Amino acid sequence: MNFESEMWQLIFPLSINVIMSIGAYFFTINIIPRLKDLFIKANLYGIDMSKRNNLKVPEALGVVTGCIFLITMFLFIPVPFTDYIFKNEHFPHNEFVEFLAALLSICCMLLLGFADDVLDLRWRHKLLLPTIATLPLLMVYYVNFNSTLIMVPKPLRFWLGYSVDLWIFYYVYMGMLAVFCTNAINILAGINGLEVGQSLIIAISIVIFNIVELSGDLWKAHRFSLYFIFPYIATSLALLKYNWYPSKVFVGDTFCYLSGMTFAVVGIIGHFSKTTLLFFIPQIINFLYSVPQLFHFVPCPRHRLPKYNKDTDQLEASVTVFKYSELNPLGKFSMWIFRTVKIVQWQSSDEDTVICNNLTLINFLLINIGPTKEPKLTLILMLIQVFCSCLAFVIRYPFASIFYDI
Amino acid sequence: MNFESEMWQLIFPLSINVIMSIGAYFFTINIIPRLKDLFIKANLYGIDMSKRNNLKVPEALGVVTGCIFLITMFLFIPVPFTDYIFKNEHFPHNEFVEFLAALLSICCMLLLGFADDVLDLRWRHKLLLPTIATLPLLMVYYVNFNSTLIMVPKPLRFWLGYSVDLWIFYYVYMGMLAVFCTNAINILAGINGLEVGQSLIIAISIVIFNIVELSGDLWKAHRFSLYFIFPYIATSLALLKYNWYPSKVFVGDTFCYLSGMTFAVVGIIGHFSKTTLLFFIPQIINFLYSVPQLFHFVPCPRHRLPKYNKDTDQLEASVTVFKYSELNPLGKFSMWIFRTVKIVQWQSSDEDTVICNNLTLINFLLINIGPTKEPKLTLILMLIQVFCSCLAFVIRYPFASIFYDI
Repeated sequence: MNFESEMWQLIFPLSINVIMSIGAYFFTINIIPRLKDLFIKANLYGIDMSKRNNLKVPEALGVVTGCIFLITMFLFIPVPFTDYIFKNEHFPHNEFVEFLAALLSICCMLLLGFADDVLDLRWRHKLLLPTIATLPLLMVYYVNFNSTLIMVPKPLRFWLGYSVDLWIFYYVYMGMLAVFCTNAINILAGINGLEVGQSLIIAISIVIFNIVELSGDLWKAHRFSLYFIFPYIATSLALLKYNWYPSKVFVGDTFCYLSGMTFAVVGIIGHFSKTTLLFFIPQIINFLYSVPQLFHFVPCPRHRLPKYNKDTDQLEASVTVFKYSELNPLGKFSMWIFRTVKIVQWQSSDEDTVICNNLTLINFLLINIGPTKEPKLTLILMLIQVFCSCLAFVIRYPFASIFYDI
Repeated sequence: MNFESEMWQLIFPLSINVIMSIGAYFFTINIIPRLKDLFIKANLYGIDMSKRNNLKVPEALGVVTGCIFLITMFLFIPVPFTDYIFKNEHFPHNEFVEFLAALLSICCMLLLGFADDVLDLRWRHKLLLPTIATLPLLMVYYVNFNSTLIMVPKPLRFWLGYSVDLWIFYYVYMGMLAVFCTNAINILAGINGLEVGQSLIIAISIVIFNIVELSGDLWKAHRFSLYFIFPYIATSLALLKYNWYPSKVFVGDTFCYLSGMTFAVVGIIGHFSKTTLLFFIPQIINFLYSVPQLFHFVPCPRHRLPKYNKDTDQLEASVTVFKYSELNPLGKFSMWIFRTVKIVQWQSSDEDTVICNNLTLINFLLINIGPTKEPKLTLILMLIQVFCSCLAFVIRYPFASIFYDI
């Protein structure tokens, strides 16, 4: 009886959620072409720099999928609570709070992302605002769980004990997770379909993880995650149809922020923020590789996209030219490391002038596989993402069981 | 003891709220001039049609005050709950839910308003999206109160009884309240400082009402309203400084939507949605007067602002010219009423061609007082708003006590 009731609580809302997601998919597919002109008229467009034609491509379409995602969730909210509504049982306010806080954080990021696309915000806003947008979420975490203990891996237990209370630092970590997720997708971008492609692979990885964990004790947390991820996947898949090579629409920072925040939100509320991070391996590598340019140890141009070769219709690694003598010590040190482990293309024609590839995963790939057509490059990057997700599952399950008692 | 504890629960969070609001005011005052160029660069500007110069005035600055308002609220959220946090008492999830739902609805409207300013949305979106944005709010109302009874005025009790259960229609009414509030401010607009001015008078009226009601049984609901209204007033006051004649910034639909939703939210959660509506008398009159044009019974031009006379530097009523014979029956009927009660300026040079003033409260005022300078016109409209608020208080207190037992 109890088992049956739990199955019902699992299958009923998730089925409705999937049906609504399918609806959202078709709605998105239909509405994007109709809204394209609205964006171009509003000066929200870009020129695709990796194409021969110079068509205006509407930009920031992520705001459309984001709104449809939010509307779907708004309409879905009552569904998991129908039992309480019709049977007049005690209403689970704590679960409802999670919904609202999650939607609030996502809605804030959507607003911020769209403002960024329209107004071109400064870096400090991009770091500050996501932190503030997670405050309601952290408050919910505090109120509902306030578990800041982390398990210590077996080899370290002799020194640290079975678990460590990270206390306030756990909240700092969660706040930073949101900032990282939103920006990490945003800097692994620039070729058709990549932002949506990688986000979808991360989302599908989360779905698989959630479904596996539905049989565990924390099934409610994973059900919560699925409520959000299904409509997210549906709307993003519709967006990919138009964003895939050759892109008819660009997704904008809006989409990257929306995606990052959605992943951070389900990770935090679903208690699997560390696993969420595991699905970001390519983004973490890209971020670490980009550090010298992002923090201006070495010069960083406005755009770091690969260079388009009109004659071959292929993409090549883009480069930045600078004087070695003008680098600060951190720049010289980081470049020494990168050159030692041979992960940069480093050409110095005379004593001082250096030609170095821009430090992104995309350019690194292009150095190693040579000039490549754009759709093939996106596909390779997506395969890397898939491979890293498989790796993440290996780390999360067989590997973790060596270090933890699970 | 209990009384002291209640006073503390009232004074402590409200004091912090006021202090944070003052901070928000100065922050807004400081940041608006610095962001102006960002808006102009993003093509978000308008030309003030009632000025001799043709300067670019940045548009949609409401998104800035809206964001600062939200950030202030995010930082404020933990304050009313400190008692529960530090004393480990049972956390009042139901109160927390109200906060989150209110912020979610406001954040949604801010996003929608900004999207409207940037993309110029269609009317159906403007009506549909606020309705959806109130769904979480209505859900909270359902869960926390679900009181859909309204008291029947004494003279009608013989037929209807003491109270009537409006059932689902009460929710429809609340949803429509949000749509009305957001759009009503938006259509009483078009001269420097008017949008912010009227919103501030409504907000101050709500504050007075809340403070009066703090001594009553529902003091918690009115405290909740004050939490939102103080930061709203602070950020809007800062905006008024730049939006007052001659406007250095425009506030955009963003601000109107933000304001309307804030008023609707505190009215719904604070249980005084009918009183909130009483503070909208000028907006209601303007809406009713506009109906023939809004619903296209008579032709409606793109802009219905008053006409600027360069030579006198004064505003005059703007007009629309149309053929009487081309009006549909509803148009002919509504115009017949308007002419009978003498509230339109109706000139027909030949048999068929009609020159009629645009049907807005501003134009109506200009017909009656003659051409007026812009700041004086704004001031008169604000005085009307103040007068109507006084009238609202008379209706709410002495007048209502005749019809209800209060």
